[in-house]
Amino acid sequence: MTTPTKDVVIVGGGFAGLNAAKMLGNQAGVRVTLVDRHNHHLFQPLLYQVAMAALSPAEIAAPIRHILAKYRNITVLQDEVTAIDLVARQMVAKECTLPYDYLLLACGARHSYFGHEEWEEFAPGLKTIEQATEIRRRVLTAFEAAERTANPSEQRRHLTFVIVGGGPTGVELAGAIGEMSRYTLAQDFRNINPKLARIILIEAGPRILPSFGDALAGEATRDLEQLGVQVWTSSPVTGMDRDGVQVGRERVEASTILWAAGVTAASLGRQLGVATDRLGRIVVEPDLSLPNHPEVFAAGDQACFTHGRSTPLPGLAPVALQQGRAIAENILREIAGFTRQPFQYHDKGQLATIGRSKAIVEIGRLRFGGFFAWATWLVVHIYYLIGFENRLSVTMRWAWSFFNFRRGARLIVNKEWRFYPPANGKKRPGP
Amino acid sequence: MTTPTKDVVIVGGGFAGLNAAKMLGNQAGVRVTLVDRHNHHLFQPLLYQVAMAALSPAEIAAPIRHILAKYRNITVLQDEVTAIDLVARQMVAKECTLPYDYLLLACGARHSYFGHEEWEEFAPGLKTIEQATEIRRRVLTAFEAAERTANPSEQRRHLTFVIVGGGPTGVELAGAIGEMSRYTLAQDFRNINPKLARIILIEAGPRILPSFGDALAGEATRDLEQLGVQVWTSSPVTGMDRDGVQVGRERVEASTILWAAGVTAASLGRQLGVATDRLGRIVVEPDLSLPNHPEVFAAGDQACFTHGRSTPLPGLAPVALQQGRAIAENILREIAGFTRQPFQYHDKGQLATIGRSKAIVEIGRLRFGGFFAWATWLVVHIYYLIGFENRLSVTMRWAWSFFNFRRGARLIVNKEWRFYPPANGKKRPGP
Repeated sequence: MTTPTKDVVIVGGGFAGLNAAKMLGNQAGVRVTLVDRHNHHLFQPLLYQVAMAALSPAEIAAPIRHILAKYRNITVLQDEVTAIDLVARQMVAKECTLPYDYLLLACGARHSYFGHEEWEEFAPGLKTIEQATEIRRRVLTAFEAAERTANPSEQRRHLTFVIVGGGPTGVELAGAIGEMSRYTLAQDFRNINPKLARIILIEAGPRILPSFGDALAGEATRDLEQLGVQVWTSSPVTGMDRDGVQVGRERVEASTILWAAGVTAASLGRQLGVATDRLGRIVVEPDLSLPNHPEVFAAGDQACFTHGRSTPLPGLAPVALQQGRAIAENILREIAGFTRQPFQYHDKGQLATIGRSKAIVEIGRLRFGGFFAWATWLVVHIYYLIGFENRLSVTMRWAWSFFNFRRGARLIVNKEWRFYPPANGKKRPGP
Repeated sequence: MTTPTKDVVIVGGGFAGLNAAKMLGNQAGVRVTLVDRHNHHLFQPLLYQVAMAALSPAEIAAPIRHILAKYRNITVLQDEVTAIDLVARQMVAKECTLPYDYLLLACGARHSYFGHEEWEEFAPGLKTIEQATEIRRRVLTAFEAAERTANPSEQRRHLTFVIVGGGPTGVELAGAIGEMSRYTLAQDFRNINPKLARIILIEAGPRILPSFGDALAGEATRDLEQLGVQVWTSSPVTGMDRDGVQVGRERVEASTILWAAGVTAASLGRQLGVATDRLGRIVVEPDLSLPNHPEVFAAGDQACFTHGRSTPLPGLAPVALQQGRAIAENILREIAGFTRQPFQYHDKGQLATIGRSKAIVEIGRLRFGGFFAWATWLVVHIYYLIGFENRLSVTMRWAWSFFNFRRGARLIVNKEWRFYPPANGKKRPGP
């Protein structure tokens, strides 16, 4: 008796989806389709470096279909998933509908503005290449505008950068702007001194980097202040417009506001009618499957995994990567007639970097900061960057940019490519 | 007696403007302001490689203010020039107004659709980073759409690529798409065979590459056909929509149409009330100045220079570069009390490349094609790329991408970065 080939559909080509696909690649008994609305896998831990003009998008992203080209049983489709029919076991996307025997939901997370979605226009978040390019455009354009104007208060507004949210992303963005203004841009302007840029990191909670220990967070605060970043804690943002933010009774005039304050899981999870946590993540069983739907799994930022833990697993790349692999292994195990194994997370610790040679590292009880922490951060990221595309070159190019720190990618790229206004007089319709 | 410092305003940071600025940099007696609407200088001869996903934008572009940072007498402003007041000797831009003693107009050219400006929406041209990214997005998205659909006629339409215009840019684009479909993408798809892509290079005139000799153009045609490119000569395009082009009585269904057919000088020249040629270029005196306005110069794609020649100088990088330098030298000469020299062009020949190891070269009477021509093309471009930024790294990264030919930059980047629709219900207003 031969078992018929099982259709595995993976939604999302991030760390979870991509690693699940790799593990299922060229295995007997499974036919895999990976669907993502982007054509590329993104190495998100380095996305802030694209936003800060140190790296080009292509250096931290690669076409998903190229990464998976050697697995003949995997098809990659660029499409946007709109619904899951749990009863008919079908995934519905904009351009196609796919039946599945197994489904993996790994669509990740997006920014949450806590009910103030209108703030996105003023304060972009950092989850996609497009957003990183937009942030880069805004930061560099602010320096250009400051150079152009003779009005001192306008100049001050253009040279004020507000980052909302004191987690690792906020800290990395603030540190990178500090470094850019103090080192990279220092000599390039005539009418302004980029070193006088005012950079404010605003955190609603009592301290930055709440997932790290007290001592390390304190060290990070001092490192940030050396780069000219002011850290405001216990300061919830209460209002925002295109010219600044309101923090309690204080108004900060700033033409650049960046959002690193909160995330929420992709909305697909909430549409399924299963339990989700307050971040919209699907509450999963010990094997990462959905309650009453053992054929459907969730992983990464879309899963809320609490088994044997006091708090759910955090939204980190190692969590997503290990979950993707575990799900693929369980599928293969079940097809081979064995029982599933519960997921076990191997804690790899956490890292955050603050500028060129400062970072903080927590691995189990090991906690340290400074240059050695930064070197650890570098090695870990180089290692995973190699892992993700197996290309020495990506790493070499990246390491070069990093050591050189020239921020070679300081391009302001506009959104509009057309020159001639459209003939019908309408406001430039999309093609 | 000391002469007062002269204000030199340069409009445009292309080959002409940048090289004029470099020559005036740190010279006594001049204060230079360079105005460009982009923040970067673009190495345009390699722009088609960005469009074809072989290079990243940052590899062929660099911030103008960074290139000129070491010249303390040069200020760089990002602004869009709207008018020139020849009488008051003022340059008027959107954000500022600058008086000048000398003015250099070097705003380059843009695509011309010969009165069919509505075609731009269907067939982008290739002059800016934004356009290159748009072309890349369209070409890669067409392959994705073809992979997704099961409808054979739709698939055929998605796999048909039309390039309008048989000059060097059209030939380079067509060759690169041929190569991409035959080599780079060949293994990455499951439902389509990228090798079956239909690539049509459409030229209205009797043959492609009219600026080259007959024999070389014939060689280029054969090279293109080896890469699967069909060359249609004497075939003027008469109509166009988002699904294809009309060529006489023949309709070609194609979801990707690229425009490489014609250019026109920046409109600023036409607003001055001076004589322009049919391409909108300012007819200049032997020293590149405007008739009756010796203090105003035009260079590069914006100048029509005919002195001692049967045809005007073509729109090539070496022409612009030499003209920019010659103008700067004349300004310095005049300030020092000497008379101006007429401009003399030193012909460096012309090159066009057709894929990875084929090219054609014409230097004076020397005409050759094939691998040696391609090697010449490579050396010339590496040399000028070094020259333009003095960074070995740019060249190394570029050479690596080129030899490897993996087209590492195969990212489809969308235009929209927002996730949440704006609160007021309007269609996503700009910030």
